[in-house]
Amino acid sequence: MADLTRASGVPTASIKFYLREGLLHPGERTAPNQATYGESHLSRLRLIRALREVAGLGVETIRRLLRTIDDPHEDVLAVLGQVTDALLEPDGPPASRTPEQLAAEAGVERVFTILGWEVEPTSATRRRLADAALAMRDNCLPGAPIEMLIPYGQAVAPLARMEVEMSLGPGAQPSSGGGRDASLLTVVTGTILGEQILTAMRRAAHEHYAKLLERGKAGPKRAARRR
Amino acid sequence: MADLTRASGVPTASIKFYLREGLLHPGERTAPNQATYGESHLSRLRLIRALREVAGLGVETIRRLLRTIDDPHEDVLAVLGQVTDALLEPDGPPASRTPEQLAAEAGVERVFTILGWEVEPTSATRRRLADAALAMRDNCLPGAPIEMLIPYGQAVAPLARMEVEMSLGPGAQPSSGGGRDASLLTVVTGTILGEQILTAMRRAAHEHYAKLLERGKAGPKRAARRR
Repeated sequence: MADLTRASGVPTASIKFYLREGLLHPGERTAPNQATYGESHLSRLRLIRALREVAGLGVETIRRLLRTIDDPHEDVLAVLGQVTDALLEPDGPPASRTPEQLAAEAGVERVFTILGWEVEPTSATRRRLADAALAMRDNCLPGAPIEMLIPYGQAVAPLARMEVEMSLGPGAQPSSGGGRDASLLTVVTGTILGEQILTAMRRAAHEHYAKLLERGKAGPKRAARRR
Repeated sequence: MADLTRASGVPTASIKFYLREGLLHPGERTAPNQATYGESHLSRLRLIRALREVAGLGVETIRRLLRTIDDPHEDVLAVLGQVTDALLEPDGPPASRTPEQLAAEAGVERVFTILGWEVEPTSATRRRLADAALAMRDNCLPGAPIEMLIPYGQAVAPLARMEVEMSLGPGAQPSSGGGRDASLLTVVTGTILGEQILTAMRRAAHEHYAKLLERGKAGPKRAARRR
């Protein structure tokens, strides 16, 4: 176990906790007090750590995801869908939705159709988009229709296509090397880090375009006060 | 104060806390035990609540931001920059950076130049992009150069320009109506909600393009297992 701690960077106490909780499969017993751990333990530990530390998921959610990952009847797309849904809704889908929220979800479906996207009816992205569009209407853009979502979809479409081709396309390293755990680790960290990049880029662009706009409309007084 | 609670939806205990902490300016005394509160209290309360609940900022950070907002010598772009930096780095900029991080920040500057963007050298977006690119290289894209950031910038550029024009351009409601607090409230909630929309759209697009890709490369066995 000392080797596993060294190779994974995960403290022994955490490894024991994951073993106790059944998130990590037991090592192979070599003596009553000895067990050996292999590559499968290492890749599972890396995945658990990313789900806990990078994605911030709780032990129960991780247990549920790992069950799906380990089910040979689930295909890789279903697993990916469940993982990304869990990132948006760590406690699972909400028990009930208001009529206003359901109407907004129907609007999101129209937006997906306009974008030409096929998205599972149960996807958590649908609820997230409906709720965010309602909050945007109430707080920032009074009266904005659900179609306000379209430019956001158009903005990410070419990027998302590129990301999918890089991680699942023919040029990507085959998911057989490293197995499902390694593929999922890449997808989860790529999802979260890509979000950080996308949102930071949007803010940098806001700064740039706000400066351009101020400069364009600036009278001499404003221009003098800008730094 | 009961009226203020009703109009803002903020509990009386929280209002008293903000008054004690100096985040909210005192009402006008009408009797030893009576004070009246006006529109300025309401808009300030809404801003404080958005900074705490939507943006998740702490009281100390909010105090610092409000000081900048209330300083008539600060122009609106400087205030916006401070607010969005605080959303990325609630505890302020890091005390020190490794040589690798500094090299990556220089790379981010090259990326901004390629994109044609002018971004303050002190902007928190620069550090966030450098760190995320390093993490992406170490976890998902071995050997990826800093230029991997460019497509993310290209994806958000037209969207960010549209958002800036909607919130600060000639068509936007003049920031004189409602004052700085109301403008900042719109910008802060628009920033956070826009991020939720952008990231949920990216995940929906991943789902769509992953399905397309699987369908394209599917042999009969894979096609049969897809649902």
